[in-house]
Amino acid sequence: MTITPTTGATRVVVWGENRHEQLEPEVAKIYPRGMHTTIREGIEENLADQAVVRTATLDDPEHGLTEDVLAATDVLVWWGHAAHDEVSDVVVDRVHQHVLAGMGLVVLHSGHWSKIFRKLMGTSCTLRWRSENDRELIWTVDPTHPIAQGVPHPIIVDAQEMYGEQFDIPAPDELIFISSFSGGEVFRSGCTFRRGHGRIFYFSPGDQDYPVYHHKDIRKVIANGVAWARSDRPERSDPTLLRYETGDFFNGHGYEGALER
Amino acid sequence: MTITPTTGATRVVVWGENRHEQLEPEVAKIYPRGMHTTIREGIEENLADQAVVRTATLDDPEHGLTEDVLAATDVLVWWGHAAHDEVSDVVVDRVHQHVLAGMGLVVLHSGHWSKIFRKLMGTSCTLRWRSENDRELIWTVDPTHPIAQGVPHPIIVDAQEMYGEQFDIPAPDELIFISSFSGGEVFRSGCTFRRGHGRIFYFSPGDQDYPVYHHKDIRKVIANGVAWARSDRPERSDPTLLRYETGDFFNGHGYEGALER
Amino acid sequence: MTITPTTGATRVVVWGENRHEQLEPEVAKIYPRGMHTTIREGIEENLADQAVVRTATLDDPEHGLTEDVLAATDVLVWWGHAAHDEVSDVVVDRVHQHVLAGMGLVVLHSGHWSKIFRKLMGTSCTLRWRSENDRELIWTVDPTHPIAQGVPHPIIVDAQEMYGEQFDIPAPDELIFISSFSGGEVFRSGCTFRRGHGRIFYFSPGDQDYPVYHHKDIRKVIANGVAWARSDRPERSDPTLLRYETGDFFNGHGYEGALER
Amino acid sequence: MTITPTTGATRVVVWGENRHEQLEPEVAKIYPRGMHTTIREGIEENLADQAVVRTATLDDPEHGLTEDVLAATDVLVWWGHAAHDEVSDVVVDRVHQHVLAGMGLVVLHSGHWSKIFRKLMGTSCTLRWRSENDRELIWTVDPTHPIAQGVPHPIIVDAQEMYGEQFDIPAPDELIFISSFSGGEVFRSGCTFRRGHGRIFYFSPGDQDYPVYHHKDIRKVIANGVAWARSDRPERSDPTLLRYETGDFFNGHGYEGALER
Repeated sequence: MTITPTTGATRVVVWGENRHEQLEPEVAKIYPRGMHTTIREGIEENLADQAVVRTATLDDPEHGLTEDVLAATDVLVWWGHAAHDEVSDVVVDRVHQHVLAGMGLVVLHSGHWSKIFRKLMGTSCTLRWRSENDRELIWTVDPTHPIAQGVPHPIIVDAQEMYGEQFDIPAPDELIFISSFSGGEVFRSGCTFRRGHGRIFYFSPGDQDYPVYHHKDIRKVIANGVAWARSDRPERSDPTLLRYETGDFFNGHGYEGALER
Repeated sequence: MTITPTTGATRVVVWGENRHEQLEPEVAKIYPRGMHTTIREGIEENLADQAVVRTATLDDPEHGLTEDVLAATDVLVWWGHAAHDEVSDVVVDRVHQHVLAGMGLVVLHSGHWSKIFRKLMGTSCTLRWRSENDRELIWTVDPTHPIAQGVPHPIIVDAQEMYGEQFDIPAPDELIFISSFSGGEVFRSGCTFRRGHGRIFYFSPGDQDYPVYHHKDIRKVIANGVAWARSDRPERSDPTLLRYETGDFFNGHGYEGALER
Repeated sequence: MTITPTTGATRVVVWGENRHEQLEPEVAKIYPRGMHTTIREGIEENLADQAVVRTATLDDPEHGLTEDVLAATDVLVWWGHAAHDEVSDVVVDRVHQHVLAGMGLVVLHSGHWSKIFRKLMGTSCTLRWRSENDRELIWTVDPTHPIAQGVPHPIIVDAQEMYGEQFDIPAPDELIFISSFSGGEVFRSGCTFRRGHGRIFYFSPGDQDYPVYHHKDIRKVIANGVAWARSDRPERSDPTLLRYETGDFFNGHGYEGALER
Repeated sequence: MTITPTTGATRVVVWGENRHEQLEPEVAKIYPRGMHTTIREGIEENLADQAVVRTATLDDPEHGLTEDVLAATDVLVWWGHAAHDEVSDVVVDRVHQHVLAGMGLVVLHSGHWSKIFRKLMGTSCTLRWRSENDRELIWTVDPTHPIAQGVPHPIIVDAQEMYGEQFDIPAPDELIFISSFSGGEVFRSGCTFRRGHGRIFYFSPGDQDYPVYHHKDIRKVIANGVAWARSDRPERSDPTLLRYETGDFFNGHGYEGALER
């Protein structure tokens, strides 16, 4: 695929599973218009006119992630949890292809176990967890990173689900944040990965049972992540296997099969 | 899964697609008993009694990679090319699970486009190529790495298929070798990756149309890779998502669903 | 140190040794106003009003790198070769401190053996070389990196000094470019490193005997490197060892000695 | 330098500053024969006849680190604290050169601020700290690493000095352990670095005021680190800058100056 990008504001889609909010009153109380709406507002609050943010949810046709929508999305933000398995493999493949072609992806919290994140990582993406009101401290270990700017060291989240090591991911390209929990566990809570032409930021703070997406510093980090994940490449394009003749570095031929050549 | 390993010689399976050798007389001339046999002999030549090496091929039942075989394999070596698509998804998932649980994997040459390598990398694993008798020079960039020991700098391969950048892989954990080709292209030809509890070594030299697997130094590197890829862990075990109560760091509970908890 | 930065154009100093240009007529012919001037012009050509670029040379008082100059510099570009040893250790320490506090540093070509680069890397920074009109091809291996935008893949430099592996540097944080030379050697020619609060970009193309700094694509990469190396941090500050009392994460005390405490 | 290694047991020198033990009775009580002796015993306990371990201290002539001693040392273990500044620059340069030539180095705890570690890292190596009986939990984040074998996850140290982020080091080549402290801080407590031909392991647990070097698991990790840090290269040799003629990849010429060529 080749897609001409906008050069203006970053076009963001916040994808929310939107199930807990409908099934669990205590979640609806914290996120009355859905977690995706709160996440969207946090990005808008920080990026203002540098971003145009929309939302999509699991129950939308094609989960709201049609080819047309993705082609017009610079950065996709992903929150899912209870219904990972209900996400269509066709949509997952489509999102995967767009990330490899250059779309940015910000994966939040329980999205660690989403189909799309596991497909991009190649690992189980498992971890240890506990939802018992731990205090989370989010420490910056890469103070030069743009995603770490504008937040205290540490960020303090008074009550949170615990996510702990071992987190079964590839060694991240950049490790930005490490969290500790009052129970003593640690977690690589902010990590970047390049895959194909796309940039991926995983950020673990945030949960349906805690008001974490209302937290000023968490919102800042997510907005920083969105800004960072937008590709610098002038257009979206698939990595492709091509044959190049000797001395011609710029004109590749399409693949025609392993035995026919 | 939990598998008690041998503590003795490394148990190796060389998996070969074994199609070119049957369909193309010029390949059969270079590798009369199949490429997998030549690769096996190269490992045996270098590791001697430190390894027990068997082979398996695409046309074997379950491609020769049953649960029992994998459970008794410390390191799997993979060569495939023309028939990547014929490899059963069930077998690919089984191999994937064993790698995450701790089985070593050495992926050779055109195996870059195999289902198992792409599943582990999460990317397209595409590259540029040309089969026109380029000379390949294989330069060591990590002189401390065990895989780089015992070979000249550079290794010279007189005639080879060209593989060139961009190679669409995640940034490797360790970049050991970079190749140049007489046409001027470069390639990250020796890379390591940790995924789950497993170690993966990708090494690009080697092709059905060239006698590369008879090359002394190439055989040495592959044998080094096999020795390196064997896990140091005492037993094979799956990364698992578990809940841990506060203050209990060692006794996790199995997952019981996102909404039920 | 704590320095309030400008929020406007990036303040760049191109430091040139400026000896070859005075001692060797053939160099003076290629770079009549000094290599530093040509490098400066390449940055200005690409960054326009996003950068204010000055130059400084070895023969200036304090090599033109006084505390005041460095405090007003966002990114320092370094070219040296024949006179590395003549650079004052006091100035090297000063530059080192500013890099750790957040000043960006772009090290060019033979600057690999400068005191400041070796001090930041901790290694010998040695390599293999030959000045015999090799053609250099500069291949992008990280297509997502901002420094790699706007240049062809590969960049072709018709005649260049050869720099080859093994290049004794720490594994770079990001490997952006790999070069091949017509003689067959390869080199990690574009690498980034974070040290303290500073960002460092090493880029090897460029030499006094070849007109490489007049090359459009090389100028683009250097300008990209300057833009990338500018810190995102709001102010320059030294990494510091501080004691923190239990429960107070934000108010550190200065160190008072190992035995007195 | 070129040194023929032994192929037998790993020759280890544990270097101890040995000042706290003489000046502070409470330290002498924990480590009556010096911390270096306790560290040595922990290595011997784990590596048995695979290692021959000696000690050297600051007050020995040349700090016990003569050229002859270093030439006969496969892995140097470093503990220093109160007297970093008393270590001779000549000895530091000598150790540095041996590491670049292939000697392994294990740096413990307060050795983070030693001259040799800072010289190898190129950064300030500062951190935050507090000595108030924090409990330290040491979590494995790279379960495939040989240094992480044979210890629980997490390792529990009941009372320890707190070391917290930001730890001003280059991003490690491998991040093996992350610690949390009961006060909530986190620290990258087990890190590897390759520099030149040498391997470096930094491990933070351990302090003069706590009996940490008597802790079974800490001793195991240090022994693992020693085993890992021993070079696989057949002989020690300096990285060197050499000129290579076109087509001759194996016979380099020594450098003869930048202007004379």
